[in-house]
Amino acid sequence: MPIDAAKVIGAKTKPTEFSWGQDQIILYALGIGVGYQQDPVDKKKVLQYTYENGLKVIPTYGVIPAFPAMGGLMGMPGLSFNPMMLLHGEQYTEILKAPLPVKAKTSTVGTVTAVYDKGKGAVLVLDAITKDEAGNDLIKNTFSSFIRGEGGFGGEKGPEPGNEAPARAPDVVVEYPTMGHQAILYRLSGDKNPLHIDPMMAKMGKFDKPILHGLCTFGNVGRAVIEACADNNPEKFKSIKVRFASPVYPGETIKVEMWKESATDIICQARVKERKNPDGSELIVVSNARVTLFP
Amino acid sequence: MPIDAAKVIGAKTKPTEFSWGQDQIILYALGIGVGYQQDPVDKKKVLQYTYENGLKVIPTYGVIPAFPAMGGLMGMPGLSFNPMMLLHGEQYTEILKAPLPVKAKTSTVGTVTAVYDKGKGAVLVLDAITKDEAGNDLIKNTFSSFIRGEGGFGGEKGPEPGNEAPARAPDVVVEYPTMGHQAILYRLSGDKNPLHIDPMMAKMGKFDKPILHGLCTFGNVGRAVIEACADNNPEKFKSIKVRFASPVYPGETIKVEMWKESATDIICQARVKERKNPDGSELIVVSNARVTLFP
Repeated sequence: MPIDAAKVIGAKTKPTEFSWGQDQIILYALGIGVGYQQDPVDKKKVLQYTYENGLKVIPTYGVIPAFPAMGGLMGMPGLSFNPMMLLHGEQYTEILKAPLPVKAKTSTVGTVTAVYDKGKGAVLVLDAITKDEAGNDLIKNTFSSFIRGEGGFGGEKGPEPGNEAPARAPDVVVEYPTMGHQAILYRLSGDKNPLHIDPMMAKMGKFDKPILHGLCTFGNVGRAVIEACADNNPEKFKSIKVRFASPVYPGETIKVEMWKESATDIICQARVKERKNPDGSELIVVSNARVTLFP
Repeated sequence: MPIDAAKVIGAKTKPTEFSWGQDQIILYALGIGVGYQQDPVDKKKVLQYTYENGLKVIPTYGVIPAFPAMGGLMGMPGLSFNPMMLLHGEQYTEILKAPLPVKAKTSTVGTVTAVYDKGKGAVLVLDAITKDEAGNDLIKNTFSSFIRGEGGFGGEKGPEPGNEAPARAPDVVVEYPTMGHQAILYRLSGDKNPLHIDPMMAKMGKFDKPILHGLCTFGNVGRAVIEACADNNPEKFKSIKVRFASPVYPGETIKVEMWKESATDIICQARVKERKNPDGSELIVVSNARVTLFP
């Protein structure tokens, strides 16, 4: 069996270093669609994320410095699988020391905390803590990866995703169009997987054309909540949890639906307007999502 | 008199260092509109400029590593002027060692070669040579700056711009729409002048809103020639000379008109479709332009 749960649980990734400055913060904002989706001179919606005069970090950037830790899964004892079979299943990102600075040098260590057996595949859960240069805990990320074909080893099924969308209509909806070349821009923030730019690689992955990064859609969900539920103040953002239900194609319009469960708790899901679910409703691309704000 | 021509001619800028790699090359391409203007999976028009697999440099990138030399004009003996009064008048860029590499460390020295008296202002000509790490001459740039209010010192008027558009209709025309936030993306390639992002700074510069960088328009003119006259092969590109006639606002569509004077010589001008000249024709934004190809 290529996954030996007993061996891999508790295993740690080697520390991965990551630095950023103003340009990386601005590039990330543009990469998730800021400026294209709004009036480019809007101070709160655009300039606070793209202009060095008063620059603020979009908190979903918190996943970027931790992302290289995922590479540490390759070659871990007890783990052997084809990386092309790995899909990003769920993502949790929490800002431990808010707000995220516009400039930092960080180090991240990931720990495998669970391996679940979903029958058709295995789910691997990696908890990663990113520390700043002074050693403060800055960000926590939990990456849940679905590894196709590696299930059936008799392990636990794992918990239900939770954060079910309420039956009532959403309290607020925000629409963000994406550019046809959104993924080409987003990948400059670090995830150079050719699946997002190369038509041939996309075909090998069984997609009609290159797909948008799940984490780009993730950034749009987080920002929609900041815009619609937090007065465009990114410093109020504490955490986000999403499940990736279906990929988005660049050029599609992401529609983020939000249910305000409390002043600090927002359940979300996201659809694309251009494709449909079997029941004729707009296709769900992110489900079981929750954003938590600081009180 | 704030400009002492006799003193300033021959003065050199201190060497300015500049490095780039694949990400900077891709960012520049996206900054001038690649991917937005075309099918994002088009190999020749998009992927050869934006995908690290087979990446090629858009030759107008040659102005980027030399641009910091312009900063060396400030505080030069014989030169004293308000930098807010400086406008980019003309630009010449020539690839001395083709093709430009996707990765380099360079050093640039500029020399003031002429100061002209245009009555309402002065024109300052800076020739800059960019060398690679091995000391090879890589790129030549000539920056012509118009300094408002500094004319009338009794100097020479300087040569006519040349490269007049022929009276006949252009042989080929290419249209490139720009994004409303094009300048926010372009400025990540190095020119952070707030005139291109900050509505208040734009007003101080007597513009309705932030304007696109002249050098972004310049990149579109160069690329139009590569697309329409050089089989999308950037390695055929030798040099480009333009005169900036009027600024472009982000979101406008640049229309590049080309006259093929010979197989290697193309006279160009550019208009925007959204505004008009006094005679009702589409506004000319770049005039007196010429691109030369290698035989």
